[in-house]
Amino acid sequence: MSENIVKPSILPGFMELTPSDQILFNRMLDIIRKNYEKFGFLPIDTPIIEKSEVLLAKGGGETEKQIYRFEKGDTDMALRFDLTVPLARYVAQHFSELTFPFRRYQIGKVYRGERNQKGRFREFYQCDIDIIGNGTLDIINDAEIPSIIYSTFKDLGFDSFTIKINNRKILMGFFQWLNIDDLTLVLRAIDKLDKIGVTGVEKELKSIGLEEENIEKIKEFIKIKGSNVEIIESLKMLEIRNEIFEEGLNELALVNKYIKLFGVPEENYKIDLTIARGLDYYTGTVYETFLNDYPSIGSICSGGRYDNLATYYTKQKLPGVGISIGLTRLFYQLMEANIIKAMENSLTKVLIIPMENYIEKAVEAATILRKEGINTQIYIEDSKVGKKFNYADKLNIPYVIVIGQEEVESNNYSFRNMSTGEQRIIVMEEILSCLK
Amino acid sequence: MSENIVKPSILPGFMELTPSDQILFNRMLDIIRKNYEKFGFLPIDTPIIEKSEVLLAKGGGETEKQIYRFEKGDTDMALRFDLTVPLARYVAQHFSELTFPFRRYQIGKVYRGERNQKGRFREFYQCDIDIIGNGTLDIINDAEIPSIIYSTFKDLGFDSFTIKINNRKILMGFFQWLNIDDLTLVLRAIDKLDKIGVTGVEKELKSIGLEEENIEKIKEFIKIKGSNVEIIESLKMLEIRNEIFEEGLNELALVNKYIKLFGVPEENYKIDLTIARGLDYYTGTVYETFLNDYPSIGSICSGGRYDNLATYYTKQKLPGVGISIGLTRLFYQLMEANIIKAMENSLTKVLIIPMENYIEKAVEAATILRKEGINTQIYIEDSKVGKKFNYADKLNIPYVIVIGQEEVESNNYSFRNMSTGEQRIIVMEEILSCLK
Repeated sequence: MSENIVKPSILPGFMELTPSDQILFNRMLDIIRKNYEKFGFLPIDTPIIEKSEVLLAKGGGETEKQIYRFEKGDTDMALRFDLTVPLARYVAQHFSELTFPFRRYQIGKVYRGERNQKGRFREFYQCDIDIIGNGTLDIINDAEIPSIIYSTFKDLGFDSFTIKINNRKILMGFFQWLNIDDLTLVLRAIDKLDKIGVTGVEKELKSIGLEEENIEKIKEFIKIKGSNVEIIESLKMLEIRNEIFEEGLNELALVNKYIKLFGVPEENYKIDLTIARGLDYYTGTVYETFLNDYPSIGSICSGGRYDNLATYYTKQKLPGVGISIGLTRLFYQLMEANIIKAMENSLTKVLIIPMENYIEKAVEAATILRKEGINTQIYIEDSKVGKKFNYADKLNIPYVIVIGQEEVESNNYSFRNMSTGEQRIIVMEEILSCLK
Repeated sequence: MSENIVKPSILPGFMELTPSDQILFNRMLDIIRKNYEKFGFLPIDTPIIEKSEVLLAKGGGETEKQIYRFEKGDTDMALRFDLTVPLARYVAQHFSELTFPFRRYQIGKVYRGERNQKGRFREFYQCDIDIIGNGTLDIINDAEIPSIIYSTFKDLGFDSFTIKINNRKILMGFFQWLNIDDLTLVLRAIDKLDKIGVTGVEKELKSIGLEEENIEKIKEFIKIKGSNVEIIESLKMLEIRNEIFEEGLNELALVNKYIKLFGVPEENYKIDLTIARGLDYYTGTVYETFLNDYPSIGSICSGGRYDNLATYYTKQKLPGVGISIGLTRLFYQLMEANIIKAMENSLTKVLIIPMENYIEKAVEAATILRKEGINTQIYIEDSKVGKKFNYADKLNIPYVIVIGQEEVESNNYSFRNMSTGEQRIIVMEEILSCLK
């Protein structure tokens, strides 16, 4: 027996759940995975540790500061901080073994040494899909993505959510037409529209030093409202003669047309010209998804189209489109907001409680139930009956089978529904048909 | 376009699969998980990074050398090297929130910076179950474990495997009775029985310096053969008067009796008195599992009973019993030995191939199929029909739906079975009933 006890604890910024919360979390992961597979995506699983030179090929910025990087022997290695860089490396490395368009999903943990704050995690699950073309990739793929988001969040139990869609080319072309070179500050101002309103944006654009004329045009642009078709019509009527703008507008119109065909109801998606998503990565369609009743949670599923996935690893041109769900943060937010509850989660369907000396009969019964695919546990330990029932209660196990002298002699089982309290003495066949 | 291209590669000792191999791997993971759940185990998911002082509380030995340990800021952290230490920490930390006996499963990656050699991995999946008692844990739990191993490997497609069972107390009591104090070398010699035979073991025991009399008794002991019941009878007839030995023998007899009741066929388990499993961790029943036709693969599922899970983190006495499947290594070995093949793996059931201009109809069809839960992909890209069929072939997608003018006009679909080559023009209802 050790006398030196180390306090059992985990690092700050890491999520660890109770088993009943974990059941709920895993159920969500399964639903996401099932949906990704339904749309023809193939699984890959890349190492969590990669060579630093590979992960940091792009280099710079926040990534480099937040990354968990270390040496072992002579090797400089690091933990992946997203699933996109490993995907790029994977596609470049295995290019000749893959069939394009390559549709892959990956669900796994990623690591970022962020500043410690509530709701931010240093280890979190990302659930990603991407469609990678070899040289080209049809715009209709961009219209399919929202239908995957829709199907997934419907299956997760959400009804009231909006997939916001935009096309970066519209923004880029528009600003090119206005002769504005540095988009960073302008886009940052526009991004705040929801929070600070049109006058707020106007103020901020002034402070950047934009010309009056341009500010007016930007105001006109961000004020565009209406149905999706109306927005597209309004954009056309701006009569902006810029190639990139026109390309973006055509793409957006096509995406808008096909989304409907892919079965996404009109109320679940919306063109939003202020969505920009980062600055250097996405090059066309962009997506963000919001729960209508909980806008403060922010986007729960984002992504977009990019021209070239793996510039740092190959000369092959690999355009793609993809999305990511950050499930750890989403799960935390949903729990905090009481939108989901882990109240009555049990994977185990039946607890068998044998009275003293009837354990053999219990083992037989468990073996029958398990052969039928029913998740079953026997309460093997020697303790009071009340404690055994309490065990089923605590773990939310919905059914209990009691086996005692009477049951064994009559070859029956006492079968109790734990939520209604109803208890019947029945044969195994009846139990099986009840449980199926 | 970047001119500096980093060679895309991963670190040595890490496994990365093609998508079709990954499908097979994931299927095995799913089967394992399903079986663990069938026996009433609850999921937990602990962080991959933990505090070094926690992971290394026990300290010493190989573990410390192999661990991936690093600092970020002032924090000394490390990657978990197994799932047992995190379980011990988890149970100690969350003791008051858990319901005992606590049956948990965990499937996740662990990290060991082992010397680089074929078939050894530095990142690998462990699939663990453990049953943890609060203070005590009935011996019948030890008899249930083999039924979980049996059910799991049956579902994985194996028939000819043997779960070897022993009880450490029998070994410990036996050697205590022989007044042999240092078991390490003796057990190591006995462990080689299969490879070097009785005379080989005898030689080795002599070289250690064991007395003739003891060597004779050990030979008598390891020569014990026969059915499980016969082995137990032979052990009784040794008439060893030692409390630990007798306790072990009683436990083994009980386990042997209950294993049968748990539905494990006689041919799939075998008492083997030479199984010892490590030296300081297990204290009672021990398990190893072998594929009869591939003994060189070694044990594919091992574990045992321990007196106290979490001595380093709590004063609570937490006896347990558990097993682990090291799936990464097992998968590698099975592939190498051609026991499993990833030939015809597809998660996607249908590829829809629209002729030019019929993409809309294809999108509609895909939406119908997906609503019915059928994994479906559309070949959206513009390319030759032959290439599209080739795509289905390469990805082993079993069915193809072709949509062209004729199909649209007659409101039918050309439905092709890719393995038989049979193609019929039928309505959607027929397709759906074919696919279900």
